[in-house]
Formats: sequence, C-alpha cells, structure tokens
Amino acid sequence: MSEPQRRFCKTPCEVELLSVGNELLLGNTINTNASWLAAQITILGGTVTRITTVPDNLVEISKATREALGRKPQFLITTGGIGPTFDDMTFKGVSKALHLRLRLNREAVRMIRNHYAKRFPKMKISLTAPRLKMATFPSGGIPLSNPVGTAPALRLHVRRTEIFCLPGVPTEAEAIFKESLSNEIRSRVGTSIFAERWLRVRGVMESSLAPVIDRTMTGMEGSGRPRIELHFSISAPNSKRAKEALVGAMSDIVNRLSDLGAKTSRIP
Amino acid sequence: MSEPQRRFCKTPCEVELLSVGNELLLGNTINTNASWLAAQITILGGTVTRITTVPDNLVEISKATREALGRKPQFLITTGGIGPTFDDMTFKGVSKALHLRLRLNREAVRMIRNHYAKRFPKMKISLTAPRLKMATFPSGGIPLSNPVGTAPALRLHVRRTEIFCLPGVPTEAEAIFKESLSNEIRSRVGTSIFAERWLRVRGVMESSLAPVIDRTMTGMEGSGRPRIELHFSISAPNSKRAKEALVGAMSDIVNRLSDLGAKTSRIP
Repeated sequence: MSEPQRRFCKTPCEVELLSVGNELLLGNTINTNASWLAAQITILGGTVTRITTVPDNLVEISKATREALGRKPQFLITTGGIGPTFDDMTFKGVSKALHLRLRLNREAVRMIRNHYAKRFPKMKISLTAPRLKMATFPSGGIPLSNPVGTAPALRLHVRRTEIFCLPGVPTEAEAIFKESLSNEIRSRVGTSIFAERWLRVRGVMESSLAPVIDRTMTGMEGSGRPRIELHFSISAPNSKRAKEALVGAMSDIVNRLSDLGAKTSRIP
Repeated sequence: MSEPQRRFCKTPCEVELLSVGNELLLGNTINTNASWLAAQITILGGTVTRITTVPDNLVEISKATREALGRKPQFLITTGGIGPTFDDMTFKGVSKALHLRLRLNREAVRMIRNHYAKRFPKMKISLTAPRLKMATFPSGGIPLSNPVGTAPALRLHVRRTEIFCLPGVPTEAEAIFKESLSNEIRSRVGTSIFAERWLRVRGVMESSLAPVIDRTMTGMEGSGRPRIELHFSISAPNSKRAKEALVGAMSDIVNRLSDLGAKTSRIP
C-alpha cells in the first residue's frame, strides 16, 4: 500500500454559528441546532470554524456578532432571539454591532400578516407591538419566509459576510435553512465535496494508537480520535478524489494497526 | 397579588466553557458536555456566560483561550483535546495563549503510570511519547486525577481566572468535575442559590403572551420564552428569597394570563 497523498482541499466556505439563548447557558437545552446546522454545512462542503453561545443579552449578542464578523467568515448564522418577547433581541444586537438603524420591514410585516391569516382564517388578528417587533429589522435586512412558524428570518449582507438570523425553534430553523440557506452555501462551495468514513478498532490500547494515527495523518488532513472509533473526513474538489484519499488513508491505517495486533472493522 | 419585588442577585461566579473538537464542528457529535456542565454550574449557583466551540487547531484554541481570559470569568473550563494523539492540543493551546512553557509534570506522570498499573496489572506498560504527552503541562499547572480514564485533567491559576482543562469523553469530564471542580465553584458562589420553575400555558397565542411577559419580567430578572412553556429562574442569597420571588412572579403571570383567557399549569 503506497502512502496516501495529500489531497485535502481547503474549502473557501467558512461558516460561524452564533447561538443565542439563556436556556443554552442554563443547561436546560442541548444545542442541537448547532450540531444539526454543522452537519448540514459539512455535508454541503462548507467548514464550520467556530460556534459561540451567548445569553439573551444585547451587549453580549452585539459583541459576539462583531467578533465573528472580525474573523471574516463567508457566512454567519445565528439561531434564537427573533421572537416577539422582550428577551428576543438578536436583530437589535446585530444592529448595534453594525451601527444600523432598526426599521419596520414592510415585506416582513406582510409575511407575518399572511401567516396569521392562513393559520387563523376566521379570526381578526391585530398586529400588536410584539408582533411588529418580529418585523423590525436592521436596515438593509431582507426577510426570509418562515414556512412553519411566525417570525421571518433575516438575511443581511455585510462586507465579506452573509448574515442569516434564524429562529431558535429547531423545526423552524431547519425549514428556513433548507429553503433559503443551503443553496447559498452550496453555490459558494462550488464543486468541493465532503466525505467521511468510520473505523472500529479492537484489541489495542488507546494510547498505542497515537503513533499510528500521527503517521497516517501527516499524509492526510482530517480528524482521528483515539476512542476506538476512528473518524476520517475530507473535503475534496470531487467525489472521486475524496474517495481515493479516504480509501488510501484507511487502508494504510488498517495495515499499521494489524501490525500492532489490532482488529479493525468499517462502521457503515 | 402584589408586584413581585426585584430580588435577583447577580452571583459573583461567572464561568466560561470552551469546547475543543473537530467532531463538534463537523456536526458528528452534539455538545452534551457543555449542556451537562452548564446545568451543574447553574445548580451550584454559578452563571455560564459564554460557550465557545473551536476545532482541534492550535491557533484557534490559543485565541479562544486568550479571548475568554480577557472577559475575566472566575472559571474557564475547557473540554476535549487532552489525549495522546497529535490532534489533542489543548494544553499546547493554553500554553501558547499564556506564553507558558510546556513541561513534563511528574505528578501527572505518576497518575498515568498508576492508571496503567491498575488497569493492566499483569502487563508492563512503557511510557511512550504519546503517553507522556498527556503529562506535558503548561508550567504552573496542577494535575487532577482522572478516576475513570487515563489523561489527567489540568488546573491552572491565571490572574483572576481558574482554568480547568477536562477530557472530552463525557464520563471522564463528569467524574473530574464532581471530584475536583464542583466544590471550587460552590465555595466561590458562597450562599447564593439557583431556583427555577416551569409553567405550561394553553389557549393563547404565542405573540399574545409577549406583553404579559414583558410586564412581569420588569419586576423580576429571568428568562421567559413564548413557547407555551414558560421558564422562571432566579439566583438569590438563600432559598427562602428565591422561592418568594419565583412564587410571586408566577402568581402574577398566572393572573395576567387568566385575564387573557389562557389556562396555565405548573410543570413539576
């Protein structure tokens, strides 16, 4: 088996996630939005470079937004804090970070009105202040329709970064991601694709794996963890190259492990 | 029912969490360590102010560590990246952030040796380079024994902050937290305690709740989300005060909601 070649291709699509919500910092809620989004973005060929979680606090949201933009990711995706109550302040925080005015967005108002008209066709729903709050956008912001909830999402272009603010409710965040965001990421990534494989290792101690993994990994970028389950991942310009690199690295490590007396099996 | 009084007491114990691991950014692994730690810290009366997730990358770990220390939390708890393989680089990242030298820590070597002697009493285990890597600490670091795994954790005092670096394996992180960290947080918090209650609301639309919540929340700090389930939380100097404030705020909101025709029930 020849040495696997260095085929890792740095994708040009870096994404930061910013999760907003006290419930995440109180430990009441596990941040499944972040892992769901990260998995989707990874599959599309993008790279999630950092995930930050902050409370429902104007200053913290604003600071974290500014810090993230300073790292110049292609996308900044926030979740949470775009509902009607006083503690929903993501739009306000983004505005503060960018010194933008908050304005009632007509298109967003129309979306909210339509949502209520559809959901409660026989009721007259008045657009109260909390409902209009959901349509109060940083100037320049574009509303994205929420196919399964009330609050429209926000899209805002800032220098090098596209900001997307999604709701915190997972079904809503997921629906809007699929409808309005995944294509954006796909087109930014271009033809780069992501591939991964798992390998189970038995009959060898964790720390004995370390030199083997080090040796193989110098031949291929990726992540391998000494947890008896090894994970191989790659982003490459096309699926043929990705597969070749993965298969090469895996064969190599399987050979080295078998020299150590370990048994390996692929995890489907 | 009288207005609930402003009894929220800012605890002096702020904690930042730094999660290290490619698997979290690839979306393969949900960050349950962060939510488990956040829940424990909250119960102890501490406040988790931010959670940051970075990849297994020296520069990123170092940057995130420096940024977190700049916010001067009482505690910075990292998880992940302290094992034997090349991609475990939390100790190196912390050293880089603080311009500290890495040194072989004798006490940590002893812990690792004991771990192997206990786990494999009949085998002669040599302390290979990857195994010694787990004992290579930033100078000034104190090893904390890992009751369920190999890699010792690290404790390091830096100006205003106590840094704790825990393993990424949840059972190990949890065991070390309970054995070596929870008492530290408890003693820092002093007598402040945390209490919370949940309330289920039926028969009223989400956005109709907003004004009611806003009104009650100006009388009490906490978090209330318009998800039909409302969450009330408070940190107070003692449990009597915490209970009074919670009961006051809940009675108040129940009354206001009943005026709107909503039905409420406590979630045990």
